[in-house]
Order: sequence, then structure tokens, then C-alpha cells
Amino acid sequence: MTVQTLTLAEKIIARASGREAVRPGEIVTCAVDLAMIHDSGGPRRVKPVLERLGVGVWDSKRVVVVSDHYVPAFDAESAAILKLTRDWARDQGIENFYDQQGICHVVLPERGHLRPGMFVVGGDSHSPTGGAFGSYMFGVGATDMAGVLVTGETWIRVPETIRLRWDGALPDGVSAKDMMLKLCATLGMDGGDYQAVEYSGTTIAGLSMTERMTLSNMAAELGAQAGLIAGDETTAEYIRQAGGDPGAFVGEQGDEDAPCRVEHRFDAFALDPQVAAPHSPANSGSVLDAEKAKLDQCYIGACTGAKLNDLQMAARVLKGRKVASGTRLFVAPASTRITAQAAADGTLAALTEAGAILLPSGCGACAGYGAGVLAEAEVCISSTARNFKGRMGAKSSQVYLGSPFTVAASAVMGHIADPRDFLAEGAA
Amino acid sequence: MTVQTLTLAEKIIARASGREAVRPGEIVTCAVDLAMIHDSGGPRRVKPVLERLGVGVWDSKRVVVVSDHYVPAFDAESAAILKLTRDWARDQGIENFYDQQGICHVVLPERGHLRPGMFVVGGDSHSPTGGAFGSYMFGVGATDMAGVLVTGETWIRVPETIRLRWDGALPDGVSAKDMMLKLCATLGMDGGDYQAVEYSGTTIAGLSMTERMTLSNMAAELGAQAGLIAGDETTAEYIRQAGGDPGAFVGEQGDEDAPCRVEHRFDAFALDPQVAAPHSPANSGSVLDAEKAKLDQCYIGACTGAKLNDLQMAARVLKGRKVASGTRLFVAPASTRITAQAAADGTLAALTEAGAILLPSGCGACAGYGAGVLAEAEVCISSTARNFKGRMGAKSSQVYLGSPFTVAASAVMGHIADPRDFLAEGAA
Repeated sequence: MTVQTLTLAEKIIARASGREAVRPGEIVTCAVDLAMIHDSGGPRRVKPVLERLGVGVWDSKRVVVVSDHYVPAFDAESAAILKLTRDWARDQGIENFYDQQGICHVVLPERGHLRPGMFVVGGDSHSPTGGAFGSYMFGVGATDMAGVLVTGETWIRVPETIRLRWDGALPDGVSAKDMMLKLCATLGMDGGDYQAVEYSGTTIAGLSMTERMTLSNMAAELGAQAGLIAGDETTAEYIRQAGGDPGAFVGEQGDEDAPCRVEHRFDAFALDPQVAAPHSPANSGSVLDAEKAKLDQCYIGACTGAKLNDLQMAARVLKGRKVASGTRLFVAPASTRITAQAAADGTLAALTEAGAILLPSGCGACAGYGAGVLAEAEVCISSTARNFKGRMGAKSSQVYLGSPFTVAASAVMGHIADPRDFLAEGAA
Repeated sequence: MTVQTLTLAEKIIARASGREAVRPGEIVTCAVDLAMIHDSGGPRRVKPVLERLGVGVWDSKRVVVVSDHYVPAFDAESAAILKLTRDWARDQGIENFYDQQGICHVVLPERGHLRPGMFVVGGDSHSPTGGAFGSYMFGVGATDMAGVLVTGETWIRVPETIRLRWDGALPDGVSAKDMMLKLCATLGMDGGDYQAVEYSGTTIAGLSMTERMTLSNMAAELGAQAGLIAGDETTAEYIRQAGGDPGAFVGEQGDEDAPCRVEHRFDAFALDPQVAAPHSPANSGSVLDAEKAKLDQCYIGACTGAKLNDLQMAARVLKGRKVASGTRLFVAPASTRITAQAAADGTLAALTEAGAILLPSGCGACAGYGAGVLAEAEVCISSTARNFKGRMGAKSSQVYLGSPFTVAASAVMGHIADPRDFLAEGAA
């Protein structure tokens, strides 16, 4: 009998379900290594369920709670939601409670909670972000999450794997966000079909963890359940820096000959900066072909677009330049730790000197919460993941997506612009 | 016939009304040198009046518009108000429109719009701030402001002058905010009786412009119409740095023998840090006697409490320390220019490294707008001007007031604390 070859997703799921192997389409029950919930979909939704059942969480050390949606409180309702979240975390003895410290998908790895080989459930649609650390992490709704919190287990239909291979070095001014927008245009918003996407190739190997997180994060925009990248020494080093333990599964990869649904290959060196036109990330194409839309707002924020390296990309473009009159540039760093790092390394100085307006860390306007929502008919370019109609404010507003490079260049011009023109100029 | 001696307020009002002299109680009509309006009480209120009259503003160069209340847009209503403000400023040809650049009372002098001897009307209750620059500046409601915008004039009942003289140097860790809280406790919230307060003495002469602004600003908390400080070389230098022209009235003072209602004298060297208990600035006393209330939130913000030197005070206390677990520290710099300065000089790095959460510049939670409002029963200490019941959020919340030094020290302890303990430790 031949041994079944397995993809990375199958290996993790098999281990979590206590089996030697699993096959796509099987439904298995898995032990959950970690459950992550936030103030929007978390305590306020699961508390009544747990109270009716008369039970607490299965393991308070395996639950991470992050307040990131209704932060900072901007009205009576949000203040009450944050208070409920705080009180519940205290009552349940949750040690890993991050109150207004940043966006869950960034805080989770930043505080050392993820490592290769974990099986992790998150109460948010961008939970695939954890896949950048070689974890199988996916999002569930509040009802499923209540089950996880009570039992420490969840069921899963084993996904097929879709391999996305990128080779070559990215040109200067082109980033992981551009790779993802290209993928959205190529595969479409349902190209992932709730299966497991796995990123590989020399491009991926050369990316920083924060750039990899952008790819895994926006696996959600492909409609995938998870967006995996095998853990390597880059992963291990990030985890150590975050005070975590890389664990035993650094280097675990899918078997090369394991069956997958499909493999797509892409060249990084040929990629232009990409811009997604309203109202879908799949409406993407080269910035060279993009309409030079006049902008009311430029926004650098969210789990996918305001990590430290994202802010540094923007600072490279903005240093010594000014935001154009008639537009505004908001920068909402993805976490308080990133804010402190950017304050210490001069990034915030470059951004604010150029006229950027800092917003607090949180999901913010990306999801239509709090600071930076758009008025009727306003036009924005954003480094966030989604430009669905009305998501960032008024129904008649128009949101374009681009990398932090592209958003910064567009802020300088007041209309959509190619960042490569600014980096070339800026190079000594 | 003897020449009438005049207070500083009377001199400015006399000039603005085209007379040799004025006497308290007289009602005179004055030419307005500058009118300042903001997004809350400004365009959305005066636009319909001007439209009904079929006229525009009397002089677009003498009108300054600042968006600072509904910023950054946090819901559909605020987004629409900001858009209306932008559109109106454009339609009226207002060159001096500051969109989300900070709080009007700070932006106005920061951009060089104030100088000694001016007669200025502001559409906000903290308009007395302008008095720090030797301007007679006071607040009016939207109806009066509409009249000013159409005619360039307003009537005023000439106020009596209340002289508040401070002598001696402030101890380290004690600031203008402490002086004001002491005044609120001594004179009461109606001690100013809608007259003109005039600050003088060696303490005032030694204060920076930004500290003087705190005194003039909170003349509003004494119930005064204006809070004047005669312009001197410190004033002139600030104005030059801001790109303005100090003009011909630097050095203009009230006549020494001009009649005033009353003069109070205070010693600065003997002043402790002051804390105002809920729900009035007049509930102030020494921090030594203050209840060590446990704090859910510490807030450094607003026109009176988040200027560059306020942030620097907080940074002196927080450098190398951490915000206590169980509380949160918000810092909302009063303007984008202050944010850039604080980013460049290391102040933001010290604050964020200590765990402070940055909020955008604007009136914010001080006035119950946007980020940082309190939940039911929460307790806060704040560097803002007012701790009225429910102003910062839920009706059952409790707000204490203190200087940025005191708020920072309290953030480190998680309860109200004396900042002098931290500065002594910190001194080499």
C-alpha cells in the first residue's frame, strides 16, 4: 500500500483531527490550538450562548481576545461594547486580552501567538492571515465560534489545495498588495472556492513576514478558506522576535507530488503596481491603465495595508514631499506596537511632515467603523483589502485599492499615480 | 478735563468701535478684524441664513474656517457635515480653510492669524484663547455669527476688567493648567461674570505662548467673555515663527490706574498640582488631597491640553515608563502641525513606547465627539477644560481634570497620582 502524499493543509488538518491522512471532501473534527475573537463578533455574541449553557471557555489560555472594531469608542454603543468585552475577558480569565492594541490579525502574530503547524480558528473573515505563519487559520461566524469556545473543537470539510507559485524578484515600488490585486483579477473573487490556497516560489521565499501576511490575508478576497505559506527561517525569526516559540513544524511543507486542484504560476519581475477600480478587488489592472481619478481621500490602514513595512513604503514616497491640496491622507497604523516602532524609526515624522493625518489603530474606515468614513460621492484610494460599495461610508462613494506605495504617490498628486515615478526621483 | 484711563480690553474695544474711549456697560458696535468659524457651528448653521439674505461673507480674507469637531468623519452625518463645510468654504472663496488640521483655537495662532490689538469673534465657547495674543477675542453663537459674516460688525457691551495677577516661578511639574484649576476653585464658574479677565504678573511674563493659551482658553470656565494677556516680545516671536506679522500693538497694556472691578493676586511658587473632581472645574484642589481614584481612561487632548508643550510634559513623565495595565492613555495632539513636531522631536516615540494610544487631532472626546468617549460608570482623568456630567460620554461616567503632567503620572499608576514624584525620580 502506497503512503498517501499530502498538501500542507492536509498535513495540518490530519494532525489536528488525530489521523494519519485526510482527503479533500472528508468532514473531520479537529482540536483547536487557538481561538481568536474580537469585540464585534466575540464576547457580545458568544456570552449569551455560554450563559444559556452555563459554561465558560474550554481553555482560557487558548483564547485570544482583541478589541479592534469599535475602537476607540466613538459613541455610547461602541463604549458599551468595549466595556462588555473587557468585563467578559476578565470574568473568563483570558490572559491574552489586547484592548485597543491594534487589529487582531496583526496583534496575534506580533505577540507571538502563531507558529507553523497550528490549527487556529478566528472570528473574522480575514483570519486566513494566520496562514502566513504556516498555521491553518480560517474564519467562522459567532455561532460556530461559540461551539469552539465551549468544546475546543470544530468540524471542517477538508479543502482541496490551489497552488499559487510566484517566482522572481519584485521591482522596486511593487509589493505583496500588487501581487494580490493581480491574483484577484486573474482568479476572481470566487477563484478560491473556499479551498486552501498555498503560496510558494522564490518570490514568496524572499518576502518579509509582513508582506507574506498581506498575501494570506487577502486569500479571503479570493474566496479561499485559508492562505498558507510554509514556515521557514524567516517565519521562525519573526516568531522569536515576537517572543514566541517557533515550535517543531518550521520547515513543514506539502509533499511535492500531493494532488492539488490547480497550480497557477506568476512572474514577479514583470508586475506593474496594480489598482483595483470600484467596487471589487477583482477590478484590478496595471496603474498604467488606471483612470487618473481625482481623490478626496487617500487611506493607509487595516490589517492588510498598515503594517510597519506598509508605512515605510508610504514614507519612502512621501519623505520631503507634501500631500496635495484638495485631498487628505489618513494613516491608521495596524497596531500600537507598529505606531511606536514608526515613531522611533522616523517613519511617522516623514508621514506627518508630509501632511498625513494619523488615525488610531483599529479596523476603522476599512470596515466603515469610526474615523475616515466617506461622504456621498467622495472618491478614495486605499491600501485596504476591500472596496465593496458602501463599505467605507456612503453608498455613492468610490474606493480604489492600491499598495501603500501607490496610495502615497496618489496623495502627493491628488489623483491616482504610479509610485515608481517618485521612487526613481527619490533614488540618489 | 482729565483723560480717561483705560484697561487693555477697553483700549481694543474703543479702537474697534472708532472711539477715543469706552466705559464698562456701554453698548458699542465694533468692526471685526477676523471671524473664526468651525464645522459644528459654522457653515451648516450660517449657510441657510446667508442664502435667505442672498449675500456672501463681507470679506473672505477675514474669515477663517476650521473643521475640527466632526473630524475625522466617523459616520454618515459627520462625513456630510465636513463635505458641506468644504463646499461652502470653496464657494465663498475662503482662502484660510483648515480641513482637519487641528482644533480651531490652536490652528488660528499656529497659522499666524492673531496679533495684539485685534478684535476677533469666534464661533466657539473657547474663543477667549485668542486673548493670549493680546487680541480681544470672544465667542458668539451661530445667529450672531451670521450677522458678523454679513456685516463685518458686531455689538458688544463693554465689560469690566477682572485682574488676575500671578507672581513667582511655577515649581517643576506644575503648569498653567494647575493655575487655571486653582482659579476655577477660587473664583468659581461664574467668577468671570461675562467680563474681561486680564492676566498679569511675573509668572505670566515667564510663560510660553502655549501655556498662556491655556489661561486665556479657560477664562471661559470662569464665565468670562475674554481672557487677555498683553502682547510682549514672547508674543511677537511666536507670531513671527508662525509666519504672521506681530503688528503695531505689541507692548500695548492697560493703564495701571484704570479702574477695574477687582484684582486678585496669587503666588505661583506655592502652587501644588491641582485636580478637579467630577463634575466641575471648580471642584479643584491640591493633588495631595485628591482621592486616588482608579482610572479606566487617561486622556491628553483638546485645545487646552494637547499643545506641543503639553505633550512634552507628558513625555517627561512617561519616558522609560509604561501605562499601567487596566487603564488606557489616549493622546490626541491639538493639531497636525503639533503631531509633526512631536514626531520629529521624539515626543511621540516616548509616548507610544510607554503605551499611549494616539488619536487624531480635533475636539474629540473632550466634547463627546468621536474617539475616546466613556462607557457607563467609567472613570477618567483628562487634561481638557471641562468635566461636566456626560460631556465625555455616558452620564454615569466620572471625569477628573489635571495637567498633562498629572494625567501622565496617573496613567503610570492606574490611579490619580502626583507628577512631582516622577519628575524627581527622573531627574539626574
